[in-house]
Amino acid sequence: MSVYLHDVPLPEAQERWETALKRIGRWGVLGVEILAVDEHLLGRVLAEPIWARISSPHYHAAAMDGFAVRALDTEGAMPTQPVILLCEREAGPAYYLDTGDSLPAWADAVIPIENVEPLDEDGRPADNPRDPRQIRIRAAVVPWSHVRPIGEDIVATQLVLPAGHVLRPVDIGAIAACGHSQVKVSRRPRVAILPTGSELVEIGKTPQAGEIIEFNSLVLASQVTEWGGEAKRYPITPDDFDQIRRRVQEAADDHDLVLLNAGSSAGAEDFSAKVIASLGEVLVHGVAVRPGHPVILGVVYRQDGCGVPIIGVPGYPVSAALTGEIFVEPLLARWLGRPPVEAFTVEATLTRKVTSPPGDDDYLRVAVGRVKGKLLAAPLARGAGVITSLVRADGLAILPRGSQGLPAGATVSVRLYRHPAELERTIFVIGSHDMTLDLLAQYLAERRRRLASANVGSQAGLVALRRGEAHLAGSHLLDPQSGEYNLSAVRQYLPDVAVVVVGFLGRQQGLMVPRGNPKGIFSLQDLARPDVIFVNRQRGAGTRVLLDYQLALLGIAPQQVRGYNQEEYTHLAVAAAVASGRADCGLGIAAAAQALDLDFIPLHQEHYDLVVPKEFYESDLLAPLWAVLEDLTFRQAVAGLPGYDISRMGKIVAEVN
Amino acid sequence: MSVYLHDVPLPEAQERWETALKRIGRWGVLGVEILAVDEHLLGRVLAEPIWARISSPHYHAAAMDGFAVRALDTEGAMPTQPVILLCEREAGPAYYLDTGDSLPAWADAVIPIENVEPLDEDGRPADNPRDPRQIRIRAAVVPWSHVRPIGEDIVATQLVLPAGHVLRPVDIGAIAACGHSQVKVSRRPRVAILPTGSELVEIGKTPQAGEIIEFNSLVLASQVTEWGGEAKRYPITPDDFDQIRRRVQEAADDHDLVLLNAGSSAGAEDFSAKVIASLGEVLVHGVAVRPGHPVILGVVYRQDGCGVPIIGVPGYPVSAALTGEIFVEPLLARWLGRPPVEAFTVEATLTRKVTSPPGDDDYLRVAVGRVKGKLLAAPLARGAGVITSLVRADGLAILPRGSQGLPAGATVSVRLYRHPAELERTIFVIGSHDMTLDLLAQYLAERRRRLASANVGSQAGLVALRRGEAHLAGSHLLDPQSGEYNLSAVRQYLPDVAVVVVGFLGRQQGLMVPRGNPKGIFSLQDLARPDVIFVNRQRGAGTRVLLDYQLALLGIAPQQVRGYNQEEYTHLAVAAAVASGRADCGLGIAAAAQALDLDFIPLHQEHYDLVVPKEFYESDLLAPLWAVLEDLTFRQAVAGLPGYDISRMGKIVAEVN
Repeated sequence: MSVYLHDVPLPEAQERWETALKRIGRWGVLGVEILAVDEHLLGRVLAEPIWARISSPHYHAAAMDGFAVRALDTEGAMPTQPVILLCEREAGPAYYLDTGDSLPAWADAVIPIENVEPLDEDGRPADNPRDPRQIRIRAAVVPWSHVRPIGEDIVATQLVLPAGHVLRPVDIGAIAACGHSQVKVSRRPRVAILPTGSELVEIGKTPQAGEIIEFNSLVLASQVTEWGGEAKRYPITPDDFDQIRRRVQEAADDHDLVLLNAGSSAGAEDFSAKVIASLGEVLVHGVAVRPGHPVILGVVYRQDGCGVPIIGVPGYPVSAALTGEIFVEPLLARWLGRPPVEAFTVEATLTRKVTSPPGDDDYLRVAVGRVKGKLLAAPLARGAGVITSLVRADGLAILPRGSQGLPAGATVSVRLYRHPAELERTIFVIGSHDMTLDLLAQYLAERRRRLASANVGSQAGLVALRRGEAHLAGSHLLDPQSGEYNLSAVRQYLPDVAVVVVGFLGRQQGLMVPRGNPKGIFSLQDLARPDVIFVNRQRGAGTRVLLDYQLALLGIAPQQVRGYNQEEYTHLAVAAAVASGRADCGLGIAAAAQALDLDFIPLHQEHYDLVVPKEFYESDLLAPLWAVLEDLTFRQAVAGLPGYDISRMGKIVAEVN
Repeated sequence: MSVYLHDVPLPEAQERWETALKRIGRWGVLGVEILAVDEHLLGRVLAEPIWARISSPHYHAAAMDGFAVRALDTEGAMPTQPVILLCEREAGPAYYLDTGDSLPAWADAVIPIENVEPLDEDGRPADNPRDPRQIRIRAAVVPWSHVRPIGEDIVATQLVLPAGHVLRPVDIGAIAACGHSQVKVSRRPRVAILPTGSELVEIGKTPQAGEIIEFNSLVLASQVTEWGGEAKRYPITPDDFDQIRRRVQEAADDHDLVLLNAGSSAGAEDFSAKVIASLGEVLVHGVAVRPGHPVILGVVYRQDGCGVPIIGVPGYPVSAALTGEIFVEPLLARWLGRPPVEAFTVEATLTRKVTSPPGDDDYLRVAVGRVKGKLLAAPLARGAGVITSLVRADGLAILPRGSQGLPAGATVSVRLYRHPAELERTIFVIGSHDMTLDLLAQYLAERRRRLASANVGSQAGLVALRRGEAHLAGSHLLDPQSGEYNLSAVRQYLPDVAVVVVGFLGRQQGLMVPRGNPKGIFSLQDLARPDVIFVNRQRGAGTRVLLDYQLALLGIAPQQVRGYNQEEYTHLAVAAAVASGRADCGLGIAAAAQALDLDFIPLHQEHYDLVVPKEFYESDLLAPLWAVLEDLTFRQAVAGLPGYDISRMGKIVAEVN
């Protein structure tokens, strides 16, 4: 019943998996370990309930430093009519106890030492108040006062913790308190992780073109560790059927689960399915989730005949990590006997339209933050290869099969990766990209603010601000009429919003060209040359506005510029295009050129400002941002970047409306 | 400036602590370790931001298995007007690539293999579709389609992760992806934990009266581990100034923080403050938080003159654990450079009045669950010695100084210990206690329901049910007129609520007496004997109603029963009172007697039912409960307990109103 790359819906895949694992006896707790009660129990899962063996306290204990008495003997004591009790250990009527001492059999209460007058035999204050001959008391006490009776905390035989409980520090204390010195916990599942692929190189090697640093095994191993398993990473196996087959067999003999990474697409190097089929059976090849669909679920057999589940994990890093979440975590939970890890879920409003393939559950990575009281979910890069989309994600919005996507403004349910409180500390910045925003994020992190940035260009940033989708926008929009920056654009796009424009940076715009400037490009006029390929910024970007303005001045039509329609969304992406030879030049900032070791021909100094609705400008949320702009170490770090001018940083340029 | 047991408010204590730690240079990251990028980074804290060293991809990569082409060469291709391209590696116009292969310099797009017709030199389908001589295409492609351009995921020089970030699996992958093979992380703070006290015995020893199993060090060590430190537990040091002083000095020489447990009250064994003063200084002795106030904050000096912070941790387990949360966790966070651990906070309604000492911040442990859409916080046992109050707590409600408590119905802010979703799966049962409720909790845990029970007695349970403070109540209230159980009480206390009464147990009530029945107690008539001390249940308990009914029949007045006013809240607590000799007998159930090895004189078979408002009876929340009542293994486990009858279990006894 092998199925090759015929994607099956997730519930059906899960059902086939469950059926097969039940058949091979791998659908419950794998085994039990007996461990000593110590701090290594932290995070382990109880395989049996804990019933109290002894009570706690297991005797009547003094709850304070004081004198054991019989309540009856204190009856009638009053300030004006004190009662005197002799101190004697064996029979009373009084005797000194430290906190925790056992109450003598004749006593039924404790009077705290500060409430008695310890006396010597002559009735004078005793030398040692904790060892007097007698005490004077001026108030009666009720039975059992200041006594911790037996079983106050735990009564022998009661249930202290249920099986399947994941042990926390206080739980370990309670287990010890009720008389256990050993407990049974589920043994940790052993998981083998086998990276395969001739294109892979180990971490620490410098990869050549066509080579990829192997890191999926690291993500998978860390996930397994986090979820309570024991991970073993194997070295990279090249794309060779026999070698992979040997490795899988070896790993299966020694592990509870095998994760066979990469080679799971239907491509030339697709040995995974063949290997699994040759050692057992493929249950599912292809699950209708995106990203991640070329997952293989299967069972291989050990030399002793036991079945071992195996997952063919897709090679793209986002797919690999999500395969871990979707298939590995619930299986480990079952094997450990604990509930599956639970995400915290919030409802949020989608900031832009999303299109999904109709047949797939679509796992959308989103940034989440609160703007004007409303939780917003901004979709991040969707490529299965973009691991930073998972790093930056605040959560996953799962668009179910058949939805074919959702419009902007739709409500989505987001499974959070972060603590919900972090969302309340998130500053959403939108608009034009500048690399100092990365630096700003670092400084804000130290002040307990998270900066989530969406790079959509200056104009789109102002539009998003009007729609209430961000707290501030970075903008460098030149007004060709006035030569001024940003103010006329703010008036145009935010006509009815009270806005503060805060100076941030002056920066050099210019042409980025390869080191040595091989094509001899020195001005925008050279863009019209037929041998020059340009890479542009997207429509609405300040850099694009500047380019169009300057081209018009020079009388150059866009059609004359080769690559004018080749668009990138950030300065660094433009620089990367030039560095890779995809283009001969691009317009951008000096820092981006330097970062990728390009030459830079300065053309223009421009103002990059922060446009902030007044209500946010004055908010607690943004206060640390203004503090960072005053922070000398931050200013120096920015001033040290090539082409940056900080003379306007933090100054209010204008208040509009 | 030592202050002895003069409690200072928490903010002032924290300020003194901060000032002193700054003075000794212990208020920032302690140090940095360079670690290889592997799965052991999980949970470590970045000491430096991660800036990308290389881009990812670091070359233009084929995003699919397919043919590299120049988009220009595909122009005009249509289904009816195919284009043929020859395959040649060095110059094109086409060449086969696997996913991830580097795009040749002459190409700018990839056509997926399923969209081309691979041909041999004669124009017939190629034998090997991945190595044809030529391809036929029937659609044009745009530049960069099916190519992952350089930097798609990460552009060299960009910020990938900020300093202070706690590493998750995907972060570790991203660090490897952007070219790092080593990273700097904060070193783990080393924390010494010194239990002191002559009354303490190690785990595994059977404690005698006056002896206490030492488990605070276990809780503290687990906390330290959980929060990212390295804990070392020392053996128990007896109450001896010189021995404790030597241990502290030794621990300080080798650790970043010393936790000196117990001996921190002002009692006889209070060596902590003296030891700290002799090796350094006491900054604070006594913080106005409850429980936990006898905390000591101090600094001791190493032999090399360096200052080492030391905390005198109170001996009561709840105080000890809270001292960890209040003082140790934030310090470790600072030393690691990460944000402090954040609790999720909810607003909930207090189910009963709470009185707090006016000068203290009161840390109230509460059970939290949702009943009729409203989150309720039910205060748990308040004793500082009751570690199960922390184990069972769903969260902490902190009543600030000066509040002096709060009335029932007040809104409190609760810092949750559990995932909020767990609260939605919590079944609140109130009323009479029965030990099978523990068993039920265990079975429900396997079905993803948590049973939170409050033992207030049958009558109070029905009252709480009326107030909407629980989902169901356990009740065994005898109607002396009808001889029926529960129905008349339900009509009386829940006159306008549609209620289902579900049969649960029949159980023997009888007298629990010490093994061998030394006082020869055989019936309730013996309670009137002057040599017999009785232990009673609280007012409103079904057992109490039964007692009062039977005493009246016998013509015995409560005043004739010694110990009538001695009240306990559970059967097991009554049994414990008898087992300890505090009383000669008590009325209760057979199982409790057996659990504590008492003799049992059966008197009466009673019905213990579950009273459930109809709306909850039919809810998804309670469905697993009804399933457990049908579960054969559960029924057998209950039937195996002494004195239990399960013939009515799960049957609807009546529907009222």
